[in-house]
Amino acid sequence: MKFTVKQIAHLLNGEVKGDESLTISQLAKIEEGSTGDISFLANEKYEPFLYTTNATAVIVGRNFEPRKEYSTTLILVENPYTAFTQLLEEYQKMLDASKKGIEQPSFVGEGTTVGENIYQGAFSYIGKNCKIGKNVKIYPQAYISDNVNIGDNTIIYAGVKIYANCVIGNDCVVHSGAVIGSDGFGFAPQADGTYKTIPQLGNVILEDNVSIGSNSTIDCATMGSTILRKGVKIDNLVQIAHNVEIGENTVIAAQTGVAGSTKIGKNCVLGGQVGVNGHITIADGTKAGGKAGITKSVRKAGTALNGNPAFDATEYLRSMAVLRKLPALEKQVKALEEQLLELNQQGVLA
Amino acid sequence: MKFTVKQIAHLLNGEVKGDESLTISQLAKIEEGSTGDISFLANEKYEPFLYTTNATAVIVGRNFEPRKEYSTTLILVENPYTAFTQLLEEYQKMLDASKKGIEQPSFVGEGTTVGENIYQGAFSYIGKNCKIGKNVKIYPQAYISDNVNIGDNTIIYAGVKIYANCVIGNDCVVHSGAVIGSDGFGFAPQADGTYKTIPQLGNVILEDNVSIGSNSTIDCATMGSTILRKGVKIDNLVQIAHNVEIGENTVIAAQTGVAGSTKIGKNCVLGGQVGVNGHITIADGTKAGGKAGITKSVRKAGTALNGNPAFDATEYLRSMAVLRKLPALEKQVKALEEQLLELNQQGVLA
Amino acid sequence: MKFTVKQIAHLLNGEVKGDESLTISQLAKIEEGSTGDISFLANEKYEPFLYTTNATAVIVGRNFEPRKEYSTTLILVENPYTAFTQLLEEYQKMLDASKKGIEQPSFVGEGTTVGENIYQGAFSYIGKNCKIGKNVKIYPQAYISDNVNIGDNTIIYAGVKIYANCVIGNDCVVHSGAVIGSDGFGFAPQADGTYKTIPQLGNVILEDNVSIGSNSTIDCATMGSTILRKGVKIDNLVQIAHNVEIGENTVIAAQTGVAGSTKIGKNCVLGGQVGVNGHITIADGTKAGGKAGITKSVRKAGTALNGNPAFDATEYLRSMAVLRKLPALEKQVKALEEQLLELNQQGVLA
Repeated sequence: MKFTVKQIAHLLNGEVKGDESLTISQLAKIEEGSTGDISFLANEKYEPFLYTTNATAVIVGRNFEPRKEYSTTLILVENPYTAFTQLLEEYQKMLDASKKGIEQPSFVGEGTTVGENIYQGAFSYIGKNCKIGKNVKIYPQAYISDNVNIGDNTIIYAGVKIYANCVIGNDCVVHSGAVIGSDGFGFAPQADGTYKTIPQLGNVILEDNVSIGSNSTIDCATMGSTILRKGVKIDNLVQIAHNVEIGENTVIAAQTGVAGSTKIGKNCVLGGQVGVNGHITIADGTKAGGKAGITKSVRKAGTALNGNPAFDATEYLRSMAVLRKLPALEKQVKALEEQLLELNQQGVLA
Repeated sequence: MKFTVKQIAHLLNGEVKGDESLTISQLAKIEEGSTGDISFLANEKYEPFLYTTNATAVIVGRNFEPRKEYSTTLILVENPYTAFTQLLEEYQKMLDASKKGIEQPSFVGEGTTVGENIYQGAFSYIGKNCKIGKNVKIYPQAYISDNVNIGDNTIIYAGVKIYANCVIGNDCVVHSGAVIGSDGFGFAPQADGTYKTIPQLGNVILEDNVSIGSNSTIDCATMGSTILRKGVKIDNLVQIAHNVEIGENTVIAAQTGVAGSTKIGKNCVLGGQVGVNGHITIADGTKAGGKAGITKSVRKAGTALNGNPAFDATEYLRSMAVLRKLPALEKQVKALEEQLLELNQQGVLA
Repeated sequence: MKFTVKQIAHLLNGEVKGDESLTISQLAKIEEGSTGDISFLANEKYEPFLYTTNATAVIVGRNFEPRKEYSTTLILVENPYTAFTQLLEEYQKMLDASKKGIEQPSFVGEGTTVGENIYQGAFSYIGKNCKIGKNVKIYPQAYISDNVNIGDNTIIYAGVKIYANCVIGNDCVVHSGAVIGSDGFGFAPQADGTYKTIPQLGNVILEDNVSIGSNSTIDCATMGSTILRKGVKIDNLVQIAHNVEIGENTVIAAQTGVAGSTKIGKNCVLGGQVGVNGHITIADGTKAGGKAGITKSVRKAGTALNGNPAFDATEYLRSMAVLRKLPALEKQVKALEEQLLELNQQGVLA
């Protein structure tokens, strides 16, 4: 896709300084820009790159006053960062719009209804009695089992697997390799040391605007539903166990795991590789540092945690600073003991 | 699938109090039940829900004496929990039984034999010279490479990948996205800093009744076999490296990793996000807390571990309790040093 | 595939002691060898197995002098380990060579060109305007989106997903379930607590000789490229976030995660389950122990780290040794305080 600087300036309600007939085909960082690229300058730290960039055009603020010679074309706008973000979004929309129609072979089971304007890639599979909304994109080799509902505008990338009875909202994105609705890890120990599988008959509900990263796994509930509320954002390789509930707009970074039946509040932020114990409740706005192990319920909203078992994040860092000096501390204590012993032996107390 | 209360009571050898003609279509928790659901009451803590539930029927003990008005129909049985579990299992069986036959297009290589009564989903692939048992279910987009043996009644969910020469036992379950038999991570360092790949020619053996969670990865042996013994249960996103052997009925929670050539005993329980070093041996019945890092062999059966490097689980929790107070402890030691210094300076010993 | 001992000896430039007409069909460890197997003896620790092995043939050094009776056939070579490795590699090559041609149904988009001698498995998908090199193997159910370039001799295993615009070098191996180029985890917080998706329009570049393990995820850059340099080896279930750059010949073990925009040097070795913070720089030759959490840039080449937050690996182990004794240390300090208090109370200073 190619556009002139003039077209882009018009879209952004901006003013061109330079050659408005030049052609733009890509977006780039100012320090990496080359011919055909458009970039932006929002942070003055990056200003030196403006004078050396090979980008064809750079979006700058209306009040920008160059302090040196430059060879690029400028587009002057109110807020360069916002304008560039708008450009990114427009570009994304055009890319998305290019996927349309039904590729063959693909599979659709009996009783399934499909909305208008969907994309269904080759080798994708939709089971029986599903309801797929409009503008949905189902990429190649995605698997959607029986009785699944998918809302409007949702994107299911290549190779996603969705088990039976799950419900996916509107405007969701599920990235490649994610598995939604596989069996919870439930086994009843038997007298002979073996385990008996506890059937997992519930489902997963993703509400609207939920995003799931690549190869993440979200297990179905034993009964009822594992629920991710509106706006939840899950990174790659995250594990959400059966019967978990995650509140609105909570964000979970890569490789974090949440054990069964735990309830996480709204607007929480869990770092990468965090572990959350089962059957606990995490208050709204809780923040957990990377690798934290949350073993107990968090009652107070806005708590910041770190460590394993996790406790107050600031105290954790203080403790870890002393941890580094532990061998020295141990020696100090030993020296003190010896001095005191000597004091006592010399009959100070006599 | 719909049943009358009468049919269910008959199956459970129970007695109906209320309208036995009502229709049941789903199982639910008593606190979440609505019309068409059947639930159970085994723990008296949940008794209040009996008087408010909208479930059509509730399974209770034979001696249950209601203390208030209720509007649901009761099924009286010897043990409500056992009866409900039986119902879950029956329901699961019916769901499983509904998948049958060969969907097209699907692929079967030369020399492969397939048992009776199997399900093979669309876009699934079975390579050459495989032997697939009876009642096996191979869901859509599963990949089974050449020379793979799969025992009777095993379920391979959508998108599972099984590399060449692997052996899967009877009554196994492998969830979506799991990869069985990919190359072990073996590279020989060269003089110039590069690495040369060490061919990985062995396989993976899953014995009977093994369960593998979604997106878990189990690498083939360099030579010989990576082996998971009877009844091993593996959760989601678990990594088992080449040449590992895991004993009967060992249970491993999500996101745990076991490095190469390690032997884990029987009846162990590893929590989530545990790491186990390579080339070590873990005694039978070992229990590791979530996030433990097991760096050395565990010789004594039934050992409980935590921390990284892992040590006795109880001692670990005690140490971590002091860790929280480390900055205070450091101050105490400093204060003691100053006091002693003062004592000495004041010539106490003189 | 079957060969005579004579053929193998010829390949290895070795000398046979015993029956050179025997048939070999497999490679095995000396302690596990059975009829039809060939093994090797390089480490004298394993010599006792030579006298008991059931392997048909064993590769030994030219100067090897048996000290007991044995029933196997020997092949004498200069370096038994090197010779056996050569055999492993030849075997691997033959296995690889057996996959050829285009299986149907498979999908190739408009404008895509494909080199000679490729394997394309059934249900694999190649999008529009891709360029696939010669001798490439694309296994069943792999997904290659639009505008992807793949170099010569690269192997893409079953079910790999490669998003649009990615570039994969020559001689790369990508194992099943890996996802290359999915969206980076970028969301801009909004005033109302929701998040707005930041479009991720960059790509992933894997240079030559890169290996990616099963179910690992490598996100595309927001703009520009996430880059893995020549010879990088990535194990299973590893997460590489957007805009990360990893230097030549760096090795990363399973379940490790690297957060966004971090630059890792050459010849680093990261253990399993390591976490690396975003926006930091890791010097060449850095080594991180399993489960380390690297929170800050590492400036000095060859640094060895452990712990979370990570610091010097040797100091870490010393600190952890004291950590185990923390409750005792705390008691010691308490006892010292009491003694000093007593000293003071008894008016020593008076």
